Amino acid sequence: MKPNTTNPSDLKIVALAGGVGGAKLADGLAQIMQPENLTVIVNTGDDFTHWGLNISPDLDTVCYTLGGLANSVTGWGRMDESWSVFEQMERLGAEAWFRLGDKDLATHLERTRRLRGEEPLSGITRDFCRRWGIRHAVLPMTDDPVATMVDTVEMGELAFQEYFVHQRCEPTVKGFRFAGIDSARPAPGVIEAFEKADAVVICPSNPWVSVDPILKILAPLNPPIFGENGGKILVAVSPIIGGKTVKGPAAKMFAELGIEPSALAVARHYGSPLLTGFVLDTIDADLSEPVAGLGIVPFSTNTIMNLSDNRRQLAQDVLNFIQRLL
Amino acid sequence: MKPNTTNPSDLKIVALAGGVGGAKLADGLAQIMQPENLTVIVNTGDDFTHWGLNISPDLDTVCYTLGGLANSVTGWGRMDESWSVFEQMERLGAEAWFRLGDKDLATHLERTRRLRGEEPLSGITRDFCRRWGIRHAVLPMTDDPVATMVDTVEMGELAFQEYFVHQRCEPTVKGFRFAGIDSARPAPGVIEAFEKADAVVICPSNPWVSVDPILKILAPLNPPIFGENGGKILVAVSPIIGGKTVKGPAAKMFAELGIEPSALAVARHYGSPLLTGFVLDTIDADLSEPVAGLGIVPFSTNTIMNLSDNRRQLAQDVLNFIQRLL
Repeated sequence: MKPNTTNPSDLKIVALAGGVGGAKLADGLAQIMQPENLTVIVNTGDDFTHWGLNISPDLDTVCYTLGGLANSVTGWGRMDESWSVFEQMERLGAEAWFRLGDKDLATHLERTRRLRGEEPLSGITRDFCRRWGIRHAVLPMTDDPVATMVDTVEMGELAFQEYFVHQRCEPTVKGFRFAGIDSARPAPGVIEAFEKADAVVICPSNPWVSVDPILKILAPLNPPIFGENGGKILVAVSPIIGGKTVKGPAAKMFAELGIEPSALAVARHYGSPLLTGFVLDTIDADLSEPVAGLGIVPFSTNTIMNLSDNRRQLAQDVLNFIQRLL
Repeated sequence: MKPNTTNPSDLKIVALAGGVGGAKLADGLAQIMQPENLTVIVNTGDDFTHWGLNISPDLDTVCYTLGGLANSVTGWGRMDESWSVFEQMERLGAEAWFRLGDKDLATHLERTRRLRGEEPLSGITRDFCRRWGIRHAVLPMTDDPVATMVDTVEMGELAFQEYFVHQRCEPTVKGFRFAGIDSARPAPGVIEAFEKADAVVICPSNPWVSVDPILKILAPLNPPIFGENGGKILVAVSPIIGGKTVKGPAAKMFAELGIEPSALAVARHYGSPLLTGFVLDTIDADLSEPVAGLGIVPFSTNTIMNLSDNRRQLAQDVLNFIQRLL
């Protein structure tokens, strides 16, 4: 299947994203692609309720990043944030393990109000994006409740934010469960975005808890979107660089599950025929050959996105790579 | 009935209060009375839901005032307030006619969370007061939902905050209804506070919409608390001074209901035998005789409470007056 264009920036792309790393590549893609050509589908398995508010951490990280509102120092929440509500909540005895800034809080408050009024998360997200000046489509993977549960050696099964924030990823991971995933349907617009896409990019997000929930929601679709009988090529960018993650517990999770953390382990996790191509960091270039041995086309480049320019460059590299694979 | 003390500050008092004026006299009383001797019972008919949050404007005004947290310039909300959440909520398209500051918002957020968890409003208020360092008892009149509805010529029946804040008290008042009042029971502690009280003070709050709801909840009690067969003496402080209110629509309401607004009209509104004594401002001293003509003992003094000292002085004057009536 050849797209009717030769400019990689004119490819139609669906990007699958979790939190910080995914948001950065999505931002890079948004910098070089027209809004109608890019759809970002975001994990909602991390969503939870705190202080009685519905919080969608990955959706917010992606939207704040695309909207230029994100706090690039902390990697979560809003820039120029204040903490008046949080301080008063602490004074009133509210749980204080999940920090919510004032600006960020408005997002959860208004989302909660609308969800209670039966607006779907996808519609709320669309309206928020419009108001934040985000022109590219951002979709939650589903409007249905899905809860990522982390099974741990020390504490049994923990809701994701309990594991991730409250317990600071310290408990040893045994496995994962995505409660509600079997009855969760893709959000409106998700299937349509895949149908018109030339390729799918798995952003450098946690394979276990950010990307797998999205893939699991898409897996039962018939006709299949990717894999042996699916039409779409799929390229993943490794979230593991030199055996470590830039942020987050992906490497720790691989290790605790008995798998040596590496870009190769990520390629193997998704596997062929799901993956057509795989992007590794230049420092992992020696893993290109074993990746190719999996039947997956490797491509190595700089994948560290500490600057806005790096995001754009990686996005361009990924699109060029996809163009070659088409 | 003689209390076993001659120091007026050692009287046991229940004060009935609405918003700003009531809160100021309650604060004056709290300045000169021991915590165990004063209970403030607050109107909850103004309570409403906004942005999905349960808001109790009068309770908050009383608590913020007693806790030294109130914004004395606006007469509502918190001092040293910030508006980050509000600004972001506006950006997200939320209704902006009711301004909620960041610090104030925490109160509503935590109250809402606890109410949803089946904690009663009285228990939540008790805990909030403890955390805010308020040592005198503040009780909502009821834990049950009561909604003050304002019937207007131009717009029909309006929920109170819709009339008061959104429509800025502009519609012409025809009458009032207190939805839910017939099934509302006094909050835990209310009856006990009356039982041990030497006297009851009606603070200078709006008779129609702040005090009447409290009196209506108490009216069906048997044995009755005050009135012809009740044991308690009751003293009201006029919220109308020189035909006007310091704040709020009480005078406008009297006029629109065909009653010339004056301290005398307030005394007549409560009437005898409910009222034992009535406190008027010195500028209304000429109304003392007609008040006495109603069978109510008049007492005139300065009732303007623009300074903390004025609050304390008025509280002392009221207690001295009560002492003379006992």
